[in-house]
Amino acid sequence: MCRWAAYVGQPIFLEDIVTRPAHSLIRQSQGAQRCVTPVNADGFGIAWYGERDEPGLYRDVMPAWSDPNLRSLVQQVRSGLFMAHVRASTGTATSRNNCHPFAVGRWSFMHNGQFGGYDAFRRDADLMIPDDLYAHRKGATDSEALFLIALGEGLDRDPKGAMERAVARMTDLSLRRGTAPHVRITCAFSDGQRLYAIRHASDDHAPSLYHRWSASRGGRAVVSEPLEDDQDDWQEVPANSFCIFDPESVVIESFRPTATAVAA
Amino acid sequence: MCRWAAYVGQPIFLEDIVTRPAHSLIRQSQGAQRCVTPVNADGFGIAWYGERDEPGLYRDVMPAWSDPNLRSLVQQVRSGLFMAHVRASTGTATSRNNCHPFAVGRWSFMHNGQFGGYDAFRRDADLMIPDDLYAHRKGATDSEALFLIALGEGLDRDPKGAMERAVARMTDLSLRRGTAPHVRITCAFSDGQRLYAIRHASDDHAPSLYHRWSASRGGRAVVSEPLEDDQDDWQEVPANSFCIFDPESVVIESFRPTATAVAA
Amino acid sequence: MCRWAAYVGQPIFLEDIVTRPAHSLIRQSQGAQRCVTPVNADGFGIAWYGERDEPGLYRDVMPAWSDPNLRSLVQQVRSGLFMAHVRASTGTATSRNNCHPFAVGRWSFMHNGQFGGYDAFRRDADLMIPDDLYAHRKGATDSEALFLIALGEGLDRDPKGAMERAVARMTDLSLRRGTAPHVRITCAFSDGQRLYAIRHASDDHAPSLYHRWSASRGGRAVVSEPLEDDQDDWQEVPANSFCIFDPESVVIESFRPTATAVAA
Amino acid sequence: MCRWAAYVGQPIFLEDIVTRPAHSLIRQSQGAQRCVTPVNADGFGIAWYGERDEPGLYRDVMPAWSDPNLRSLVQQVRSGLFMAHVRASTGTATSRNNCHPFAVGRWSFMHNGQFGGYDAFRRDADLMIPDDLYAHRKGATDSEALFLIALGEGLDRDPKGAMERAVARMTDLSLRRGTAPHVRITCAFSDGQRLYAIRHASDDHAPSLYHRWSASRGGRAVVSEPLEDDQDDWQEVPANSFCIFDPESVVIESFRPTATAVAA
Repeated sequence: MCRWAAYVGQPIFLEDIVTRPAHSLIRQSQGAQRCVTPVNADGFGIAWYGERDEPGLYRDVMPAWSDPNLRSLVQQVRSGLFMAHVRASTGTATSRNNCHPFAVGRWSFMHNGQFGGYDAFRRDADLMIPDDLYAHRKGATDSEALFLIALGEGLDRDPKGAMERAVARMTDLSLRRGTAPHVRITCAFSDGQRLYAIRHASDDHAPSLYHRWSASRGGRAVVSEPLEDDQDDWQEVPANSFCIFDPESVVIESFRPTATAVAA
Repeated sequence: MCRWAAYVGQPIFLEDIVTRPAHSLIRQSQGAQRCVTPVNADGFGIAWYGERDEPGLYRDVMPAWSDPNLRSLVQQVRSGLFMAHVRASTGTATSRNNCHPFAVGRWSFMHNGQFGGYDAFRRDADLMIPDDLYAHRKGATDSEALFLIALGEGLDRDPKGAMERAVARMTDLSLRRGTAPHVRITCAFSDGQRLYAIRHASDDHAPSLYHRWSASRGGRAVVSEPLEDDQDDWQEVPANSFCIFDPESVVIESFRPTATAVAA
Repeated sequence: MCRWAAYVGQPIFLEDIVTRPAHSLIRQSQGAQRCVTPVNADGFGIAWYGERDEPGLYRDVMPAWSDPNLRSLVQQVRSGLFMAHVRASTGTATSRNNCHPFAVGRWSFMHNGQFGGYDAFRRDADLMIPDDLYAHRKGATDSEALFLIALGEGLDRDPKGAMERAVARMTDLSLRRGTAPHVRITCAFSDGQRLYAIRHASDDHAPSLYHRWSASRGGRAVVSEPLEDDQDDWQEVPANSFCIFDPESVVIESFRPTATAVAA
Repeated sequence: MCRWAAYVGQPIFLEDIVTRPAHSLIRQSQGAQRCVTPVNADGFGIAWYGERDEPGLYRDVMPAWSDPNLRSLVQQVRSGLFMAHVRASTGTATSRNNCHPFAVGRWSFMHNGQFGGYDAFRRDADLMIPDDLYAHRKGATDSEALFLIALGEGLDRDPKGAMERAVARMTDLSLRRGTAPHVRITCAFSDGQRLYAIRHASDDHAPSLYHRWSASRGGRAVVSEPLEDDQDDWQEVPANSFCIFDPESVVIESFRPTATAVAA
């Protein structure tokens, strides 16, 4: 399990989410409270949208808390749409190419959770990545595979449908060739315009996911764990939800990967 | 293009090949003389056989010349069968998982050269890796793919035939979907008993490969470039050869990937 | 606070201490039980004596649990005298040059603990390093400074006296310019012949230190925390002790840095 | 010898200096033309001024050409005052803490060249760093020492005088305890307002230094080597010069470290 945090709204310094809050993402890398593995020290990454269509991307393999580059970057970079991730590997190597977020063109993606028994069907998952996207397959994680499969399913024109189909296809592999629990997932992704998030599981244990509007920042944070312990207005995203976060609106719909996949 | 060196014979310290000769592999990482790219600074690796069936493996992403760990290891480790590699990337990322040698079970493998247009058919190459070996696909290089395909073709029981079939299948992909020059390759591999090497190309420009018996060491070095400039008894391996190096014998046969592949 | 383990006796694979025991050093890097910081993920290192007078040295900045090079090395390397360390930084950067063990000539050294307020007197500590040893000052830790000061105080001919003088001089700096607690230290060091260890504090909270003879291994482990939870024959080293571990004998004397320092 | 490039003027993306020109700094890292060591692959760094008083800082140990983080950063970050450096070590370790630029408060500094025989007087150089700046001594280079000594000499209120005194003190050490050539140096530094540069040597071989106004960018580049081969309007900075580059003006004065040092 990993921990992540994302933001959409008025541009703020990344440090306002990543390092400054009392239970910032950096703190969560050392002591997460709402997941099984409290330490998330197998690499980290940030993706942010600035003046370019494509996001900036910075990832490295050391623990997030000990990287001076990260500390400097989040002090300098200001963005109105960004995401940050600290990783606890569930098996694949600690490698920059296995660190989240992943980025292809203007899309970025990060993930927490796993597809049960992934090692047994990793090759099949790779087969689901279309040929023209395969150059972007740089690591070995289920997360990167899911992202590329979703891009192949049309993430660009139908974010929810593409993710439902992609998750359904990965779920199907886990059901046929993997192990239970088959799917437990939260993820965030963006095209630089909107921030999307999913909370979903094939059982009753979807990973935690919260969001909160901050009037002082003029924006919304979407996080694995609340950034401050004394704020009681964090809203929990219901399990099996697909969320669209604009700076000024929140749309939460049901997320039904299986049903959609049958249709596909 | 990369540079590599291997050794089989009486156990010697790895430094006797890697760092001490006048034109040692470390020197070749800074200034190779017989290939297009003189600098091979995109990572390095060593594999050596000791008391275990499986080889030891040490790889990292910095230039070989600046890694104090490597310097210490080659001073300490003594082996009668080992290989070392310095990398100049032909496209894939600088990452430990893309550094040579690769190891699966008791087999190790390293490679210099490339299959033309690999980016365009990487997914097809991955498809050729059998499912039960796919867990060992950790990086994105053509080299690692070739090794795993060869293992799938029976490297264990028929080293030459397996490599002929594997190279033929990769060549076929390059012919159908890639670009010329289609194949230029030297590689070395071992099961811990013997040292095998191949020099092969689909045109007249196979990468350089030499070997030489050293009476003082009691062993044979197999290298991309001679380790000393003033030794005139380095023997060039003919193009399109498959070599079996025992401590006390050299067998050089013709290597014909296409013909064999047709039969397969 | 960090965690460490050392061994002297019949040559064994390093994995028998570093990775295989139920509460191995790698496990301690993820969940130490007898110190304030359970996670020791700010780098690691091993030093071992083999055929050379000088020890081999391998150090890197990632968490010990996620480094495949380390896993391979401890499977391959067999030694009758070695030490291993996992680091939790008390302030200085995560950098290979700040990772333990340190080595100069045939001596190696590793340390757990700290001198209170070190940041305020780091320059003074550097001044205590003799000019001819200053080339070995590569990082910024109090640990490396202590080692080099001890070498300057004659570690080679009088290990206990040199360490008493070195610790006394560092303690004096902490008393005059630093903060309480002034000294809490365990350390291990070796010249390749014997394994030495110190457990010492200026208050009642010396870090934990244990040792145990293993008949099956034919050697003795000296560790921050017992390697197995179900072994009740680990012996605690008393606070303020200087230990000399030979394969076949244990000598534990009192360690009195202040008194000796006055004499010096 | 290293290579570096700096810029002051209208904000531009860092890539316009670092990666896009035909003979960009990245190209110089692989094939510098005007210095003895063509390959500068022992780490790199960038420092840039944005919305904060303090500069952003990104440094790493791999070759600049193979780091995807660097490529992404220079595409995203826009600045009106920045510097970039690729390193070829003259002896000290490849380590982030030895990579340029260095930064203390709002000051940044980078350096090319060396003080002859530095290893022999490194401790004396450290002694010249004032106690209150010693916490910023993180690596072991002569470059970082020079920067901290200059800060101690009053860089903040008298940039030229402070640098003359600092260089004079280091020169004196090299004359008394080091080796010829005693000083060969180019360096750039900034307080976030102006860009300063020095070209100086104790013999006739000061490292190369050029500057050029670009009307299209609305700014001035200051570089070890011209960024384009076909531009004939790069101006060479005379040896023994101290330069102040504002967006709209260039002041070049004589730099006389020895004379000033006598006065000090």
